[in-house]
Order: sequence, then C-alpha cells, then structure tokens
Amino acid sequence: MTPIAYVNGDFVPLSEAKVSVLDRGFLFADGIYEVSAVLDGKLVDNDSHLARLERSVGEIKLPLPETIARIKEIQRELITRNGLKDGLVYIQVTRGADVGRDFAFPKGVKPTLMMFTSVKDIVNAASAKTGIGVITVPDIRWARRDIKSVALLAQVLAKQAAAEAGAGEAWMIEDGKVTEGGSSSAFILTKDDVLVTRENSSAILPGCTRKAVVKLAEERQLRVEERAFTIEEALKAKEAFITSASSFVQPVVKIDGKTVADGKPGPTAQRLREIYIDFARSTGE
Amino acid sequence: MTPIAYVNGDFVPLSEAKVSVLDRGFLFADGIYEVSAVLDGKLVDNDSHLARLERSVGEIKLPLPETIARIKEIQRELITRNGLKDGLVYIQVTRGADVGRDFAFPKGVKPTLMMFTSVKDIVNAASAKTGIGVITVPDIRWARRDIKSVALLAQVLAKQAAAEAGAGEAWMIEDGKVTEGGSSSAFILTKDDVLVTRENSSAILPGCTRKAVVKLAEERQLRVEERAFTIEEALKAKEAFITSASSFVQPVVKIDGKTVADGKPGPTAQRLREIYIDFARSTGE
Repeated sequence: MTPIAYVNGDFVPLSEAKVSVLDRGFLFADGIYEVSAVLDGKLVDNDSHLARLERSVGEIKLPLPETIARIKEIQRELITRNGLKDGLVYIQVTRGADVGRDFAFPKGVKPTLMMFTSVKDIVNAASAKTGIGVITVPDIRWARRDIKSVALLAQVLAKQAAAEAGAGEAWMIEDGKVTEGGSSSAFILTKDDVLVTRENSSAILPGCTRKAVVKLAEERQLRVEERAFTIEEALKAKEAFITSASSFVQPVVKIDGKTVADGKPGPTAQRLREIYIDFARSTGE
Repeated sequence: MTPIAYVNGDFVPLSEAKVSVLDRGFLFADGIYEVSAVLDGKLVDNDSHLARLERSVGEIKLPLPETIARIKEIQRELITRNGLKDGLVYIQVTRGADVGRDFAFPKGVKPTLMMFTSVKDIVNAASAKTGIGVITVPDIRWARRDIKSVALLAQVLAKQAAAEAGAGEAWMIEDGKVTEGGSSSAFILTKDDVLVTRENSSAILPGCTRKAVVKLAEERQLRVEERAFTIEEALKAKEAFITSASSFVQPVVKIDGKTVADGKPGPTAQRLREIYIDFARSTGE
C-alpha cells in the first residue's frame, strides 16, 4: 500500500508529498513537530503530545493553521487511510512559504501543516528485550530545548555518532550531567531504588512519555527524583533506560561500551515498560 | 518575469519549485546554505562563499551532489535565466529525502541541491545612507555557529525581535560580549581608530564579507584587532557597522535605542563600504 500523507489540506501519496523550497521549515527550520505512537490503531497519550505542540508553537509565535480538533481528525483519517495498526503519526507545522527569503516572520502567509504515518511495532521491538547501548556526546544544542523545533541538526549528528558506534542512542552531556537522549528522555534507577530523571527546564524537552512514566511509577509507590545525573552515577546504578513516544520504555545496558549493572535489561525498566504498554492500550483513542 | 529556481537538476519557476516533505532539510534542518551577492550581473567574492560551502558540508559529512565547477555554472545560468543584474544567489544543500524519517544519515540517498536568485539593489540601499539601529538579544544558538546550517530558528527569532523594535539587525550577546548579528558580522571603530571584530571560532560564522573587509582595511593601513567587544565598548566607539553578503558594509547608528557617536553613519564605515563596492565590481565574475 502506498503510504498517504497530509499536506496543507490534501491527502497525497507520501512519495509525492511536497512543500515549496521557500517553506520556512526548509529554509530556516522555522517549524515545530510532534510524534504520537499508534497501538492497535489507537493514538497513545495523544492529548499530551498535542498540548506540547500548542506550547511549542506558542513559544515561537507560530499560529496553528488548523484547530487541535481538526488535527486530531486528520491523525485519525491518516490512520484509517494507511490501515495503520502499530506505528507513529508525525505532525509538522512551519511558518509557511513566503514569496522570498526574509528572516523576520512573513505577513499573510498561511502556516504549513504536514502529517504522515509510519509503521513500527514498538511493543515487539527486539531492542526492548536485549536493551540498547548508548554513547555520550557533548550537548551542543541551542538554549531552548524545551521547544520541539525541527532545528535538529545537533541531534542528527549525535544519533549518527551513536549509529556509527553501534549504539541505539546518544546521551548528551552538559556541565558533566546528562541532559537527555538525541530523541528520548534518560532515566536511571539508583542502588537505593530511586528513579532519577532530569527535571524539566529549557535544558531538555519535556518528554510526554517521560511524564507519563513518572506518573505511572509514582502511582505504584516508586520513588522518583527529578534531577540531573552524571555518567558515573549511571554506571553505578542498578538500571538505566530511555523513554520516548517511538520506543516507550527501553532498557539501556551499556554506556560508552561499559555495562550498566550486569549488562542485562533490569526488572524495573521491564516492569515500567509493561505498565506503560498497559496504559497505552487502555487509554489509547 | 517569473523567477526561475534550480532544484535537483531542473530549472523551474520558483513558485513551483518543491522538495519532498521527507527532505532532511525540512524534517531535520540537515542542510547547509550560502548566499552570494550579484553586482552588474557578476558574482561577488563567490569563491570565498563556495569554499565556505565546502567547509560547512564537510563539517556535517554531507557530500555535495555536484562539483563546485557545476554549482558555479548553475549560479551563472540562474543569473542569465533571471536576467539578474543586482541581487543574490542562494544555494542550499541538504542530505536529501529518504523513504522515511530516521535521524541517522540515510544510505544511498542523493543530497538535494536547490538554488534561486532574488533581486536586491545592495549598492543603493537606503539604509546604507541612514545607517541602521540594532537591538541586542541573548545568543541562544548551538555551539557550532561556524557551520552555515539551515538550523536558523534562533536567528529567525532574533531578527523578528529586531523587526518588531524597528531595528535592522539583532546583535547576539554571549558572556557579555557581542558574537555577531543574526545574519551579519559586527564591527566597531574605537576612539583610537582600531577596527574591532570578533575573532573566528565556533562562536561565530566566519563571514566572507567580514574577511574581505578586514583584508581591504589592512591593505589600507587601518589597524584591525580580532577580538570580542562589549556593547558598552560599542556605545563608546567612534563608529559601528555590520558586514554581510546581502548588505556589504552597513553603518550602525543606534544600539538598543542609544546612539553610537553622533548617531550618523561614520566616515570609516562609509569609506569601507565604497572600498568594498569597488572590490566587488572589479573582482566580480
């Protein structure tokens, strides 16, 4: 089946979906994106992602070209048209295409809305069973990482370095502490059974899956501390894992080639993964 | 006349020039750009821009899809097809469009090359006669500003803030010092007649026009110091100005609403502008 995408009002084959070369998403990375998981044909934690979309566009004064209600309709229509059972729905909003190239916001230009789906069996991902390795890289990103913008070149370079090292993710380091992964949030479980993940600030993206996992963990009487941690602490931890919409919860078993604990996925990460999948299945819509 | 653009081998009307929504320039800001000025139909300091293009793509391991010789031919063909006398030629190279969206570099995907021209009478710009005001904003960009990437959202926000304040440029401040403008290099002329502009490093883009102006100034026995300066120093200076391919040399007469010297374009900036225009006319090709 040819994947169908949505671009500015039209449903078109993804391979034919295009935007103007003057689109500010292409020229300036002047755009915002979101990714929601789909499980059994239902959107997972989608309101959280759409709330973050609204926050991000607000931070760069980019008006959404459609209402959130209409964006949800398009998400559902894409799921239907693509017969999507398990995967992702991607949304990108940019400040549209002007007639020329000026840095300042154009006037009277309608923002671009582009969406497409992709197939991904997140629940049965092999890497969830084996765990992944991560490498560390300096966090060279801009100062507003709380905005989910498409200015992702630093993350591309970080994740390419991870791929070249045979690792599944890159943890970015700033002032000696982990900020987050290239496209995921970072957690450890300390020897005292405390889940640690960095507190939200402009230094990291406020992860939707991170937020849900923290809530689910706390509801189950797990202790959570929101603070930055070092790689030394992570290497002494009982467990480490990442969270993201496209991986849910995924154990981390190696950091820069050194094993975390016994180098196997830990029980807490595995349990949180199951809890998250139950949450995703029971609340998907 | 309909402006003609170049996209991946084709010359097409700019209004119909498109790229895939999966183009990594659009999804990830995974691309590099350059802008060369055109004066009397000739490219200004173009080899310097193309050398920087090669350096930038090299820094992100993005192979150019065409040789520099071929890119020059396309530049010339666009100038001819658009009957361009005075303006700009824009070049953008991205890591191309894969079949999906993965952060790591795709394999076997041809990079995108997109180019277009725009009309601009840089020599007779009114703002060169009156001078411009600049505002200051915190420099929130990533750590590799020496790479001329299309991840320009911070610059967009800075230049939008300038536009809202009625200013012509935003000077970005880091650790109390000016790094550079949103799309230009920053200079001052001290009371001791020393031209000061920040030294090249990963904190700023190595400006092509900046480099040419420094050389032209030194050839004329002007003293140049490459070091960072503060806004306090700029406000006590004899003159201030910016340089860029799209403005050549442009006097700065106000910073955050406070006048520089008597609030009029200074003689050294005006002289350097004339010298640069002579250089541009005599070396254009």
